Amino acid sequence: MSHPQSVFDNTSFFGETILSRRRQIIASITLRAQLEQLKQTGRYDCFKLKWHPIYDDKSMWPVPYHLFWDSDVAKWIESACYFLQREYDASIDLAVRELVDMIRDAQQPDGYINVHYTVVEPQKRWSNLRDMHELYNAGHLIEAALAHHKYYRNNHFLDPIIKYVSLIHCTFGTSEAQLHAYPGHPEIEMALFRLYSVTKSQEAYELAQYFLQERGSPSGQHGMHYFDWEAQQRKEDPYTRPNTYPERNSHWYCQAHKPILEQETIEGHSVRAVYLLTAVADMVQLHHKGGKTLSNPDAWAEAVSRLWTNMVGKKMYVTGGIGAIKQWEGFGCDYFLPTGTHEGGCYAETCASIGIMMLAERLLSYDLDSSYSDIMELCLYNNVMTAMSLDGKQFSYINQLASSDIDKSIREDWFWCACCPPNLTRLFGSLGGYLWHVQESETKVAINIHLYTTANLSYTTALLENVSLQQISNWPWDGHVSLDLSSQSRSVTIRLRLPSWCHEQFEITPSPALDDFSIEKGYLALQPSYTNVHKKFSISIGGFEPRYISPHPYTAQHALGIARGPIVYCMEDTDNPWQHNYFRDVALKKSEPISEEAKSMANGEDYIGLRTKCWLTREDISASTAGPIFDASIGEDTSEKSAILIPYFLRANRGGNGEMRVLLRRGEE
Amino acid sequence: MSHPQSVFDNTSFFGETILSRRRQIIASITLRAQLEQLKQTGRYDCFKLKWHPIYDDKSMWPVPYHLFWDSDVAKWIESACYFLQREYDASIDLAVRELVDMIRDAQQPDGYINVHYTVVEPQKRWSNLRDMHELYNAGHLIEAALAHHKYYRNNHFLDPIIKYVSLIHCTFGTSEAQLHAYPGHPEIEMALFRLYSVTKSQEAYELAQYFLQERGSPSGQHGMHYFDWEAQQRKEDPYTRPNTYPERNSHWYCQAHKPILEQETIEGHSVRAVYLLTAVADMVQLHHKGGKTLSNPDAWAEAVSRLWTNMVGKKMYVTGGIGAIKQWEGFGCDYFLPTGTHEGGCYAETCASIGIMMLAERLLSYDLDSSYSDIMELCLYNNVMTAMSLDGKQFSYINQLASSDIDKSIREDWFWCACCPPNLTRLFGSLGGYLWHVQESETKVAINIHLYTTANLSYTTALLENVSLQQISNWPWDGHVSLDLSSQSRSVTIRLRLPSWCHEQFEITPSPALDDFSIEKGYLALQPSYTNVHKKFSISIGGFEPRYISPHPYTAQHALGIARGPIVYCMEDTDNPWQHNYFRDVALKKSEPISEEAKSMANGEDYIGLRTKCWLTREDISASTAGPIFDASIGEDTSEKSAILIPYFLRANRGGNGEMRVLLRRGEE
Repeated sequence: MSHPQSVFDNTSFFGETILSRRRQIIASITLRAQLEQLKQTGRYDCFKLKWHPIYDDKSMWPVPYHLFWDSDVAKWIESACYFLQREYDASIDLAVRELVDMIRDAQQPDGYINVHYTVVEPQKRWSNLRDMHELYNAGHLIEAALAHHKYYRNNHFLDPIIKYVSLIHCTFGTSEAQLHAYPGHPEIEMALFRLYSVTKSQEAYELAQYFLQERGSPSGQHGMHYFDWEAQQRKEDPYTRPNTYPERNSHWYCQAHKPILEQETIEGHSVRAVYLLTAVADMVQLHHKGGKTLSNPDAWAEAVSRLWTNMVGKKMYVTGGIGAIKQWEGFGCDYFLPTGTHEGGCYAETCASIGIMMLAERLLSYDLDSSYSDIMELCLYNNVMTAMSLDGKQFSYINQLASSDIDKSIREDWFWCACCPPNLTRLFGSLGGYLWHVQESETKVAINIHLYTTANLSYTTALLENVSLQQISNWPWDGHVSLDLSSQSRSVTIRLRLPSWCHEQFEITPSPALDDFSIEKGYLALQPSYTNVHKKFSISIGGFEPRYISPHPYTAQHALGIARGPIVYCMEDTDNPWQHNYFRDVALKKSEPISEEAKSMANGEDYIGLRTKCWLTREDISASTAGPIFDASIGEDTSEKSAILIPYFLRANRGGNGEMRVLLRRGEE
Repeated sequence: MSHPQSVFDNTSFFGETILSRRRQIIASITLRAQLEQLKQTGRYDCFKLKWHPIYDDKSMWPVPYHLFWDSDVAKWIESACYFLQREYDASIDLAVRELVDMIRDAQQPDGYINVHYTVVEPQKRWSNLRDMHELYNAGHLIEAALAHHKYYRNNHFLDPIIKYVSLIHCTFGTSEAQLHAYPGHPEIEMALFRLYSVTKSQEAYELAQYFLQERGSPSGQHGMHYFDWEAQQRKEDPYTRPNTYPERNSHWYCQAHKPILEQETIEGHSVRAVYLLTAVADMVQLHHKGGKTLSNPDAWAEAVSRLWTNMVGKKMYVTGGIGAIKQWEGFGCDYFLPTGTHEGGCYAETCASIGIMMLAERLLSYDLDSSYSDIMELCLYNNVMTAMSLDGKQFSYINQLASSDIDKSIREDWFWCACCPPNLTRLFGSLGGYLWHVQESETKVAINIHLYTTANLSYTTALLENVSLQQISNWPWDGHVSLDLSSQSRSVTIRLRLPSWCHEQFEITPSPALDDFSIEKGYLALQPSYTNVHKKFSISIGGFEPRYISPHPYTAQHALGIARGPIVYCMEDTDNPWQHNYFRDVALKKSEPISEEAKSMANGEDYIGLRTKCWLTREDISASTAGPIFDASIGEDTSEKSAILIPYFLRANRGGNGEMRVLLRRGEE
C-alpha cells in the first residue's frame, strides 16, 4: 500500500502552476515562519521537559493551551522532511535534527513520549482518552518519524517511536488488564496503518484495528461506555463536560456514540470524523491489497461509503468545507449549511478539508471513481487553499462562505490551537502523492491521473523498470493537458479523470480509435493499444466556462454562486465598493452572462477574474419593522450593479474591509 | 392598573365565534381533563407533603420531574376560578376548595410554600435560584391566589400567600444579610406587580422591582454574578451545568448575562424572556399610571421596546411562534428561523406565544399601536390556538411550522413538564381582558378595541356610571363588525384597530364626517361627536382576501405561505395525498390565484379552506448523489398539483400521518 506520504517524491512539480507556486512559497517562506512561531511560543523547546509559564494557566478545561504542542512540532517536522526531499535547506535540516534529538531525550524509560503527561500531570497518563489528545499527539509523532525515516534514511527518530507504539500496544487491547479504549480524536489509527505499511509492524496494525473495532462500544469497559467509565474514574459529575459537549453524553462529538459499523450519518467534530474514516479506508485497502485479513470487510467498506455519501451530499459546502457548527467544530443535521455566523453558523475548518483529501485519496486507491477526485480537487482549490495567504505567512482556521461583523474574511499569523497551519504545509509537501496512483500487476502498469497540473511522475516497477509520465497544463485555468509517457518495456494504461462539471466534453489528440479507450466512473482509460503508439498526446477537457452553482434546495438557501472549472468564486468589498452589509442584499440571476478577465495578483500570480451583473435589493430590507410576516413581493425593488468576482482561494489578499460572500441571493429572472 | 386577569369579567362572550367555542370547550371538557391529569399523576395531592415515588427518580438533573407541580396546580386553580366566574361548576369549585386547603396546610410556620423543598430537599431552600424554579412556583401561587380572591371574594388563599411574599421579601434584597438574587425563570415579577395592583402591597412592589433591577449584575453577590456564586456555594465544578446550558456561563439562557437595561437583543429561553419583559412593561406602566416612581423610566421602556422590536422583526415565525432552538427552548441569532427539526430547529413553545400576548397587552396599555395588537392576534389565532385539539383534550408544547419523521404534527394528552396546557386554559379564562382597554379620565372615557369577535363589554366608571359596548362579528372569517354603544352621560371615544394587512381599507357605517375620526398608529378613533349621535354603527375591515406571505429574506428561506386576515394556513397530508416527504418538495407561486371554500370540521365548526395550484419538484432532489454543488437549474422539473390548505390552528384534528407544512418553497414565476 502506498500512501501519498510515502510516494509523493515520485512526483516532481515544475512550471508556474498554482500548486508549484504554493509549494515554492511554503518551502521558502512558510516553513521558516512556522518555525519562528514554534520558537516564539515555547513549542520548539517543549520536549526539553522544562516548565513553561503557560502550564500554570488553568483557565481552559479540559484542554489546556499547550496540549497539542507535541503534534504541532511533529507536523512541522513532517512537513520539513517532505520539503527537504524537494530541496535541501540547512536551517530547516538543523531544526529537524535538534527537535528529533529533544524528542528522543524526552522519551521515558518505558517508551512514553508526551509533554503534558510527563511535565504537567505526570501521574495521570491515559486517564482522559476522550479529551486529552494523548493518542492524537502520539499519532502525529509516528507520522513525523515516518517522514524523517524516509528523508534521512535512518531510524534515529523511528526507533524510539516504535518503542512508544509497543507501550501503547501493551496498554490498549482486549485483555482484562488492558484499557478497552480508543482516542477521543482519531489520528493515530491512520498513522499506525502507515507505520505498518512501511515497517510491517504487526503491533501497529493490531492496535489500529483494535481502536477502530472498539470505538463506540456501549459496554466496552466493565459494562460501560469507555468514556463514561473513565469519567467515573476521574470522579467527574455526570453533568460536568467540556464546552464542546452541548449536552451530557454527546459522544457523537467524537464519533463514539455507537460502533462505526452502525453509524448511519456522519456526526460531530468534522476533523475527527474524516481522520477516522481515512483510517477505516486504510484498513479496507490493507485487506484488499495489503494481505491483512479483516472480518466483515464489506461492512467496513460500506460504512465508509455510507458516511462519505452522507457527508458530500448533505453536509458539505460548495467550497468543499464541512462543519456548520462552531461549538463542536462539526456537522449539523442533514442539509444544515448556513454560510456564515450571522446565518447560524459555518465552520469549514481547514484541517477537515485536508482530511477529506486524505480520505478521498484512500477511496480512490480501491474504488476508482471521479466523484472522489472531484471532491478532493474541490477541497484543494477552495476550502484548503483559501486558508493560506499569498505571502505564505497567514492562515485561516475556519473558512466561512460569508463574512460578518463577528467573523470577517481575514487570516491570522498563528493560533493557540495551531493544527491547521502545519497541516497545510505537510499536505503541500506530500501533494505529489495525490496527483496520481500507479497500479502495478505482474504484467501491467496503470496510471490513474486524479489531479491535473504540471508535474512529472517517475515510477520504478517491481522489476526495476522505469515508467515516467509528464503532464503539462495551465490547470485549473484551462483544460488542455499535454502528456508524455516513457516506459521501457511495459504496457501502460493511462486513466484520465473527467470532472463531473466537464459533462464528458473532452478531446484527445491524436484521436484514439474506439477500441483504444473506455470510460468508467468518470475516468477515461487509454489502453496500451494507444499509449504504445502515442507516447505524446494531449487531452482538452471542457466545461471551463463560468457557471452558476447552487447549494442543495434542502439547505433552504435560495442562492447562486459562480464556479469555473474546479474554482469557486466570491465577491469582495474591495472590488465592489457599492455593496454594504456583507453582500447580504445582493442577488444574482442565472440567465445573466458572465465575462472573464485575465488578472494578476500583486505577487504576479495570474488568475481569471469574473464579471457579471447583479442586483442590490433595497437597503430597507435590513431595517425590519414589519414583524415576522413579509408581503411576498418585498425584495424585488432592486438596482442593477456590476459585480467583480475573484477565486475564493485568493480572498483577503488585497486589503479591504473583510466583507466577502460566495453564495448570493438568487434573484427572480 | 388593570390587568386582563383583573378585568376579564367586564367582558362576556356570546355567539358562535372561534373564541367563544374554545371557551365553551375548555369550560366543559378541558378543565376536567386537566383535573383528571392532576389526579392521575400525583400533582393533585402533592401539597399533602407525602412522599411520592417519583421523588426517588434522580435521573434528571438539576430539574427533577416533579419540580413544577406547584405551578401546575396553581395554574389550574387560576384557570378554574376564571371559568367559575363564567359559569358555576360544582365539581370544579370543590376541587379548587380542596386544593387551596391543601396548599394552606402545606405552608410552613415561617410562611414558606414549596413541595420540593419541603418534602424532598428540606435543607436546601434558595440554594439554586438559577435552576430550581422556587420563585417561579411562588409566582404562580400568587397568581392563583389573586384569581381565587377575585372569584371567591375572600382571603382564604391570598392571606397565606401574602405571608409567603413577606418571607420572600425578607430573603431577597439589597441588605448584606439578604440574597442578591432573582429567579432563573421569571414569573414572580409580574405576579408581584399584579399583587401590588390589587392589594397595594409595598413589599410586593419592592420585591418585583428589586428582581428586575438586580438581574444580570456581574458582581451582585460578594463581587460575583449571583448564579456563579450560588454554584460555588453548592460546590459545583464550573464545567458542571444543566443540559440547557450549551456552554458554561450561558447565563443568557435565563436573560441574566447582563443587566436588563444593557441587553441589546432578546436571548435565551423564550418563555423566560417574554415573562420577564411583561414584568418590565408592568413596572413602566405602574410608573406612568400607578403612581409608583421609577428611576430612569425611559430606559426601562426603551429596553422593552428594543427587545420587542428585535423579537418580532428578527426572531419570530410567521405564526407568532418564537424560539428556534430546542436545547435551550429559545432564540437563535437574528433571522435564524428554520421551520422544523429537519431544517435545524423550530421550537415555538405554546407558553412563549401566550407570554407575547401578555406582553403586547401591557405595551398597548401605555403605547397604543396596532403593531402590538397585530402580533397579539397573530399569536392567538396561530401559535397559541394550534396548541389545543378541537376536542379540548390534547395539547402541543412545541409548534413547528413543518413536521418531520422526528417531530410529527401531533398533540399529547399531557407532559411531564406541563406548563402549556394550563397556560392555555388560564389565557382563555381571562381572554376578555385582552379584547379591549377602557381608559378613563375625569371627563372622558375611551374604549380601545384590540381584538374583534362577538362579545359585550360592561364597564363601570369611577362615578359608577355604566358604559357598555357590544361587538358582533364573524371575525376572523370576515371583517364586518357591528358595534352598539351604551353610556349614561359620558362621552366615549372608540378606537378601532386597523390590522396592518387591511392596508387601511375600511368602511364605517353610518359614514363619519372628516372631523369625527382620526387614525393614529393603526387605530381609528371615532370621536364623541360621532358616538354621541351613532350608538349603533359598524366597521367593515378589508384585506380578507387570501394572500401570499413570506418570512424575512434574511432567514435565507425562499418560501411562501398563505394567510387570510390573521389566520396563517398550512397543508396537511390528509388533504393532499399526492405529497411525500412532508411537503418538502412542494412549491407555491405568488402569482397563482387562491380560491376559498366554506368548510366545517367534524364538530360543526365552520372555517374557510383554501385551494391553489402548487408544483411538486421531481422526487430525486432528495436522493443526493451529486455532492455539494448543484447545477443552478435543478429543481425546476415539476408537476402541477392542486393544493388544499387549512388554518394552521386546525391542523392535526382529522387523522392523517402528521405531515404538515406552513411555508412552502417559492417557485419561479
